[in-house]
Amino acid sequence: MIESIKKDITEHLDESISDLERLCAQPSISAQNIGLDTCSRLVQSMLDEAGLETEVMSVPGGPPIVTGVRKGTSNQTILFYDHYDVQPPEPLELWTSDPFKPQIRDERFFARGASDDKGNLAARIAAIKAYMRIAGDLPISVKFFVEGEEEVGSPHLSDFFEANASHLKNRLAADGCIWEGGGVTWDGSPVMHLGLKGILYLELEARGPNRDLHSSYGAVVPNPAWTLMWALSTIKDRHEKILIPGFYDDVREPTREELLSLNSNSNEDQSFREDIGIESFVEGASGSSYGKRLLLEPACSICGIQSGYTGHGAKTVLPSIAKAKIDFRLVPNQRPEDIKRKLKDHLAKEGFDSIKVTEHGSTYPARTPMNSQWAKLVQQSAERVYKKTATLLPGIAGSGPMYPFTDILHIPTITTGVGYPDNRIHAPNENIRLEDYMRNIMHIADIMHQMSKSR
Amino acid sequence: MIESIKKDITEHLDESISDLERLCAQPSISAQNIGLDTCSRLVQSMLDEAGLETEVMSVPGGPPIVTGVRKGTSNQTILFYDHYDVQPPEPLELWTSDPFKPQIRDERFFARGASDDKGNLAARIAAIKAYMRIAGDLPISVKFFVEGEEEVGSPHLSDFFEANASHLKNRLAADGCIWEGGGVTWDGSPVMHLGLKGILYLELEARGPNRDLHSSYGAVVPNPAWTLMWALSTIKDRHEKILIPGFYDDVREPTREELLSLNSNSNEDQSFREDIGIESFVEGASGSSYGKRLLLEPACSICGIQSGYTGHGAKTVLPSIAKAKIDFRLVPNQRPEDIKRKLKDHLAKEGFDSIKVTEHGSTYPARTPMNSQWAKLVQQSAERVYKKTATLLPGIAGSGPMYPFTDILHIPTITTGVGYPDNRIHAPNENIRLEDYMRNIMHIADIMHQMSKSR
Repeated sequence: MIESIKKDITEHLDESISDLERLCAQPSISAQNIGLDTCSRLVQSMLDEAGLETEVMSVPGGPPIVTGVRKGTSNQTILFYDHYDVQPPEPLELWTSDPFKPQIRDERFFARGASDDKGNLAARIAAIKAYMRIAGDLPISVKFFVEGEEEVGSPHLSDFFEANASHLKNRLAADGCIWEGGGVTWDGSPVMHLGLKGILYLELEARGPNRDLHSSYGAVVPNPAWTLMWALSTIKDRHEKILIPGFYDDVREPTREELLSLNSNSNEDQSFREDIGIESFVEGASGSSYGKRLLLEPACSICGIQSGYTGHGAKTVLPSIAKAKIDFRLVPNQRPEDIKRKLKDHLAKEGFDSIKVTEHGSTYPARTPMNSQWAKLVQQSAERVYKKTATLLPGIAGSGPMYPFTDILHIPTITTGVGYPDNRIHAPNENIRLEDYMRNIMHIADIMHQMSKSR
Repeated sequence: MIESIKKDITEHLDESISDLERLCAQPSISAQNIGLDTCSRLVQSMLDEAGLETEVMSVPGGPPIVTGVRKGTSNQTILFYDHYDVQPPEPLELWTSDPFKPQIRDERFFARGASDDKGNLAARIAAIKAYMRIAGDLPISVKFFVEGEEEVGSPHLSDFFEANASHLKNRLAADGCIWEGGGVTWDGSPVMHLGLKGILYLELEARGPNRDLHSSYGAVVPNPAWTLMWALSTIKDRHEKILIPGFYDDVREPTREELLSLNSNSNEDQSFREDIGIESFVEGASGSSYGKRLLLEPACSICGIQSGYTGHGAKTVLPSIAKAKIDFRLVPNQRPEDIKRKLKDHLAKEGFDSIKVTEHGSTYPARTPMNSQWAKLVQQSAERVYKKTATLLPGIAGSGPMYPFTDILHIPTITTGVGYPDNRIHAPNENIRLEDYMRNIMHIADIMHQMSKSR
């Protein structure tokens, strides 16, 4: 059966590409509030066409969420998480073809959203359609959760989950969840991830005199840029240790399986290091210590800092204001609101209580155990479809709204998708390889097939 | 005799204002290289008209310097330092009248350069003309040194002095020098200053990856914004102590006279503090401790800092580059090149040798002793003309090219001028009060008169 389905996927690839074209031709830019409602209805109609019973739920202050459900012949259920919004296409002049007029060149499909995340959504729908064509029904129940503001940090998602707790608990209940992301490495080996870091994004603002002064007053007037420097230097030391009391208290130690998984990706860190032109990673990290820091440890970055005169040459000015944007990347079981409170307490204790702290968003970390049956099933299925060793990683370095799925709905969650290192997500000429698209459709179909056999 | 001259100054005030109008009507913006040659020729012709023998010296890479000399009947010589360049007039929309079309409103003269420094130059010329009208000759020799790039830090001045050492030593030799600056306080009491701080303006640049990265890489990729923060925090501590080894080695202790002078300006610091809206000055400075820090102690200011994303809201970016502009304000006998070397040694020793240090200009500190006869003469003359207590301060908090005059030509140097706190120098609606202009002309004439009697 599954071999016939895979054959059907190959034969109907043009149709699956057409579906992806429809989806990518519809702009849906959450940062600019462009086309979101229209795109949500397009997603709904595509799920309808695939035979799902759909629901569009409005989100106060945000774009609608589309869910879809179709019963299968076994008691197993899979949930797909996707988002229909995309990053802004700018700078437009760097695109070879129009970001919202998909084009195929050199066996690649170019459009904004091709990889992140419309390609994944379309591949999942294509797998369902193939299954239906060959088997006439689905071997497991399938569910979709498709949101429209992932690219701006899903700011309304946790409120939405809270407000609709009992409905979602039933509507989204599943045995395993496939997240967006995932794909193959440069050599075509599949990689899947079992979690995301949490994030706490803050802006710190120090104020000095009520207007910029001549810098000769620097001898007597408190300078907010100095205040901010001093405050920041109490947050993290030069060995990358975060100095906020209690910051590491809730960090769960990596498991043996998580640590072991880091040895598999041997040389990727060194080619990355050369590519970005640095002499070494922080604290000389490499190989598994690189992987451990990147995937399993919390971090704090200065994302931006601004004060005073930043133009050409010299201007002798004592600034009135100094601002820094920083993010904390969190791991289980750190909680953003707890870290924020600890930071504020720390600043107050260090004498920096005049520094204003503003939050620009947060999400919880999320992680599914390496040894979960769900992870094994998806990994083994990948090895069957791709005919290569499939790597299971404990997480990715980035953040996203996975927590409600893993920790409220308690669904084991893993990424797998159409990705390839040269996909240029968030950048001009975003694309996917047609081969990766087809292979991922097969992978999804195979996962559904394996699930139906698992009980 | 001097009383007739003062009467003449009153009677010819309109003529003196016309001279100032001619000068201010000629744009001469050094930062934008506008009108400098033309203005230098105008200055030359005005000095010619006043009976001086003039010389225009070209400056490699900079605008010309105008000097003028006229012999007097005694063996005493006064030297005037002025500059014919002005600050850019922008933002133009905040000017009530055209910055280069002088206008008199409410007994004030409005134009770019009215106070800084064309008003002083014109007042000095007016005093000479009045003297000539009444006495037919000058009681002392007068000399002018008028440069055209003070507003951009006189970058070519020390080379110019070096290249023309013997000529200038003779051409500018004098018993006392009147600097630009100086004027009256809010209540009309004259204030004069005996020095300027030196300055060393540097840009520090830290580099990380060769392009901005997603901030999730902050766990492994060195962040140049953090590097810069850590480096800055080793330069000055939270008690305003500069931590560069040897930074204070050459600081000459303030003299008893310098310290005593600081008690006179009792409440100005508190009104300034309220005006700029801060709770307290650094380390609780007030009164004489405020004055000591401001006028007699070195300082280090962050004038600007920039890295990464500084727009609205959140962007998760790990910046490729981070820059800070800092200035050191220096006091006798600190030398900028020595401080720069010490800073670089310090950064290297602290492990920050990858930070690039670029100089955007420097000048030496300069100071004339409080007890110099020259200072006393100018002070006593001010009290006679203004009929108020005249305050002598050891210096101003700012910097300027005074060092060649005090320490190469060995001429005691003091400020006195047309200033008033509401002159708005460097800002829109720069102006002087006509009363201050007239009074300063009288003061200059009186100084010349007193000098002629002093030997």
